[in-house]
Amino acid sequence: MQGLMMDVPLTIPLIARHAEALHGAKIVASRLPDRSVRRLTYSEVLGRARRLASALKQLGVRRGDRVATFCWNHHQHVETYFAVPCIVDPFEEEIDEREAAAMCYTSGTTGRPKGVVYSHRSQLLHTLVVLQPSCLGVSESGCVMPVVPMFHANAWGAPYAATLAGANQVHAGPFLDARSLLELMTTERVTHAMGVPTIWMGILQELDRHAELYDLSSLQHMLIGGAAVPESLIRAFAERHGISITQGWGMTETSPVASVSYLTSELAASDVDTQYAYRARAGRPLPLVDVRVHDESGIRPWDDSGMAELEVRGPWVAGAYYDSPESADRFTEDGWFKTGDVASIDARGYITIRDRAKDVVKSGGEWISSVALENAIMGMPGVAEAAVVGIAHPRWDERPLALVVLREGCTSTADAVRAHLAPFFPKWWLPDGVEFVPAIPKTSVGKFQKREIRERYRDYYAQAAVSSVAALSPQRT
Amino acid sequence: MQGLMMDVPLTIPLIARHAEALHGAKIVASRLPDRSVRRLTYSEVLGRARRLASALKQLGVRRGDRVATFCWNHHQHVETYFAVPCIVDPFEEEIDEREAAAMCYTSGTTGRPKGVVYSHRSQLLHTLVVLQPSCLGVSESGCVMPVVPMFHANAWGAPYAATLAGANQVHAGPFLDARSLLELMTTERVTHAMGVPTIWMGILQELDRHAELYDLSSLQHMLIGGAAVPESLIRAFAERHGISITQGWGMTETSPVASVSYLTSELAASDVDTQYAYRARAGRPLPLVDVRVHDESGIRPWDDSGMAELEVRGPWVAGAYYDSPESADRFTEDGWFKTGDVASIDARGYITIRDRAKDVVKSGGEWISSVALENAIMGMPGVAEAAVVGIAHPRWDERPLALVVLREGCTSTADAVRAHLAPFFPKWWLPDGVEFVPAIPKTSVGKFQKREIRERYRDYYAQAAVSSVAALSPQRT
Repeated sequence: MQGLMMDVPLTIPLIARHAEALHGAKIVASRLPDRSVRRLTYSEVLGRARRLASALKQLGVRRGDRVATFCWNHHQHVETYFAVPCIVDPFEEEIDEREAAAMCYTSGTTGRPKGVVYSHRSQLLHTLVVLQPSCLGVSESGCVMPVVPMFHANAWGAPYAATLAGANQVHAGPFLDARSLLELMTTERVTHAMGVPTIWMGILQELDRHAELYDLSSLQHMLIGGAAVPESLIRAFAERHGISITQGWGMTETSPVASVSYLTSELAASDVDTQYAYRARAGRPLPLVDVRVHDESGIRPWDDSGMAELEVRGPWVAGAYYDSPESADRFTEDGWFKTGDVASIDARGYITIRDRAKDVVKSGGEWISSVALENAIMGMPGVAEAAVVGIAHPRWDERPLALVVLREGCTSTADAVRAHLAPFFPKWWLPDGVEFVPAIPKTSVGKFQKREIRERYRDYYAQAAVSSVAALSPQRT
Repeated sequence: MQGLMMDVPLTIPLIARHAEALHGAKIVASRLPDRSVRRLTYSEVLGRARRLASALKQLGVRRGDRVATFCWNHHQHVETYFAVPCIVDPFEEEIDEREAAAMCYTSGTTGRPKGVVYSHRSQLLHTLVVLQPSCLGVSESGCVMPVVPMFHANAWGAPYAATLAGANQVHAGPFLDARSLLELMTTERVTHAMGVPTIWMGILQELDRHAELYDLSSLQHMLIGGAAVPESLIRAFAERHGISITQGWGMTETSPVASVSYLTSELAASDVDTQYAYRARAGRPLPLVDVRVHDESGIRPWDDSGMAELEVRGPWVAGAYYDSPESADRFTEDGWFKTGDVASIDARGYITIRDRAKDVVKSGGEWISSVALENAIMGMPGVAEAAVVGIAHPRWDERPLALVVLREGCTSTADAVRAHLAPFFPKWWLPDGVEFVPAIPKTSVGKFQKREIRERYRDYYAQAAVSSVAALSPQRT
């Protein structure tokens, strides 16, 4: 027996039409290259999107064609989010909800970039769930600033979510330095900000130096993801600036938001250390998303033990990559996506990402989490940033190497770093090498570029071993 | 070009599985016939639902069969919401999202009850949108008490919404009197309550008498709908008890929530009288819902003028009634549902329901809104409730008759009622007849039973006219 409800396809025009009808006067603010801020209403932005769709059509773009965008975050980029997927018939009744709406490519930190093809349906469902109170939870009275590039990972769905909710949107254009972002958050009264940890580390340093220059009293919610968020960062924002951080986890392949580390009412009543520890996890799966961890022994229980691969399933999770038959092994036979993240899940359903599978340091047949070491080093006073990678080692297969960026005016030593880590980890986890560097190479989206680091330090332990052999065994030469 | 996302059907098992995985320890509390409160966890309730599905299957219930429920609100009724739609394969991946999930019948105030057949897809989408911050907006830390019967209008989607969010649920069983409800709200720390206006009128009277007996400090949100909410009720709760009310509008045919009168940020900054006036409207359409008003002249602009029929469209709006080909005229050729409500929509998108089409008083070729008169009378000091109906009149076709229930110990007169109304309405709107009665007949779901009132007072003006003729023209007899 079938239901007798209207057959309304779940398409992006539903978002645009709702905003045009109800939120026409709300604002999309964009920082222009001359640093001025341009404020357009949703009526203007969506009207421009309709005209852009029409112009693209006149240029010969047809259903199934692809339109690439190469822009900072600003209102024109928002307009492409509505114009391109709806080019057939801007914002009216005629698109199949399973039609392609947009493609994003993975950033390629672990291999060749692969295309993920979002459908109208997946975008709309992702939007509805991102807006749930336990996730972004923004309403019409809010103001969202996604400091996540619109050319990557769907900008965490923020352009669609803010538009459907009728929240104001703020886009930073090319000015992603901490001072510029803090200025915008102050002048635009941002309530919800989203971005990767490296952006917020810079913001923390600027706030520590010049908190008095900025007014963040409107800020209600900071959602951080895209890489592991060190607990020390969460503590520092809360304790020094009264700002609460929620961590999210996801991937280009998951549209991207799949889990959020909101505190349950049980944990909200627990001691503050427990709360910070949970906030620093990757969170609980969103509604409609299923997660599990899987290793050679099979599907693991939710007991927070071990390091196994995280697998995920849901209506906004990729079922295949675009034109990439060789990637079929990223999907299980029973229909789950293999994330490539090494994780555990606890009994409450909180995921902890131990590492990217590619970034785990394989030392003497055991696994060392590069992320755990990084987060611990970043909790050390005087440290601004740290990255840990596995480097080939003649005896142990791989050994961890730590790159550390110190805050301005601070000093430290390799021994001090190891001494800081010693109470928290087995002795064999401690990095043999600690290098102090002025900056850590990052990808275009602000993640540590670990492939490049591994390449640059490829011979680090090989050379050390040679000199060590040379030093220990002069008689052999 | 098709999207390449997973094909996960939108079914009720997604709600159950999410709650089992993440919210197993949260509570469903039910008042039993002996007045005690039984508290089960979601794990227990959903485990029982699985067993109920299995038991029904063993009793021979098959896909496409219907299982009728005849219960108060309590955990067993919640269990049927999950067991019956998922009987095929409790909570696993094998149901078509367009399959029937549940049927509700309209209450039949305006004709023969008609069946509405919700699909899994419509239920799930309705759930996601009811949970938006601008609607119910409840999260895992909340506690929902739906004082709306689960046998009617889908209990406003509360059982599914609370379960997906992981909020505690509270069900009042057979005890719907104000004192029992207030006790439950106090002991269970209810944060979100939902119900029809008549329930809250009783609660207001009890609070006015005995506020000191109850602790409503946890209450964040009261969503009232199912009938027009008088502005005076909204004011009384806010001004006398610090409780904020949001009005919702919908019908069995709209799953049922279709619009909510949350205040936009613009209105939240306006004067308090404007705010109350907007809170007393039926609100703005939810995401994914389209509304329009339609009369003989066509589709009317959103200028808040006139009285025209409200039409609605959306993925949780009925596209047809069950086995009722004679009701095809309730749907337009272009795919909208004709609500039978007389309404206007203003430029901000706020709907005002002027009346049910059947309840509008047709007097001398003009329309009088029974709802507007009722709400004004209910704003009069000393008045507990009032209903206005159109009664056949020998000269004017129909004239309004007001039934008024006075608060305990209060007195009034028909002239006083008309004097109270005079400043707000044209003279010809004022009810000729005002009858003071101990109670107004109500339907099983707490709405005024206007058909019964009209029947009971059928000859009211005919007799009045006869006596008047008799009095004026004695010479004729």
